[in-house]
Amino acid sequence: MFYVIFYDITEDNVRNKISDYLKKKGLTRVQYSVFIGDLNSSRVKEIEAGLRLIKRKEKSNGRFSILIVPVTETQFKQRIVISNEVEEKNEDIIW
Amino acid sequence: MFYVIFYDITEDNVRNKISDYLKKKGLTRVQYSVFIGDLNSSRVKEIEAGLRLIKRKEKSNGRFSILIVPVTETQFKQRIVISNEVEEKNEDIIW
Repeated sequence: MFYVIFYDITEDNVRNKISDYLKKKGLTRVQYSVFIGDLNSSRVKEIEAGLRLIKRKEKSNGRFSILIVPVTETQFKQRIVISNEVEEKNEDIIW
Repeated sequence: MFYVIFYDITEDNVRNKISDYLKKKGLTRVQYSVFIGDLNSSRVKEIEAGLRLIKRKEKSNGRFSILIVPVTETQFKQRIVISNEVEEKNEDIIW
């Protein structure tokens, strides 16, 4: 199953720990605070546990919000991106 | 079709303009920087155009990243939330 992981985290050091963790777990960064990955249920649980551990350890006072949503490849290709980053074209992602 | 709108915007005043706009358009806020709504294709285009207008007007120098992804009700109910906000239970949302 395909998952999109969004996060909105104000503290830079905490946000970097989250993105480093997701990269280490082999997810693909598609936008500043958005990762995607094709994950089975045990991998999702493993990643959720790891993210919760970072949250507990860091005790961030700022905004700390992570959302993990299952989507299909087709749905993800229909996404709309409005961003200061280089305007990302849908085909950039290799499935 | 059901859509999740997620934004990661550093400048408070710009972020508030985006959330005010989405509320005005009748979307439901489910998390600090996450809205959802049941939208037909013309409504999605209307909202996308409105968000792009705000981005052009505000010329935010900070992070400005909005992602709009179509999802099903079932998928959204399977979401995982890891957040400093009050831990949100899936049943909170009335469909």
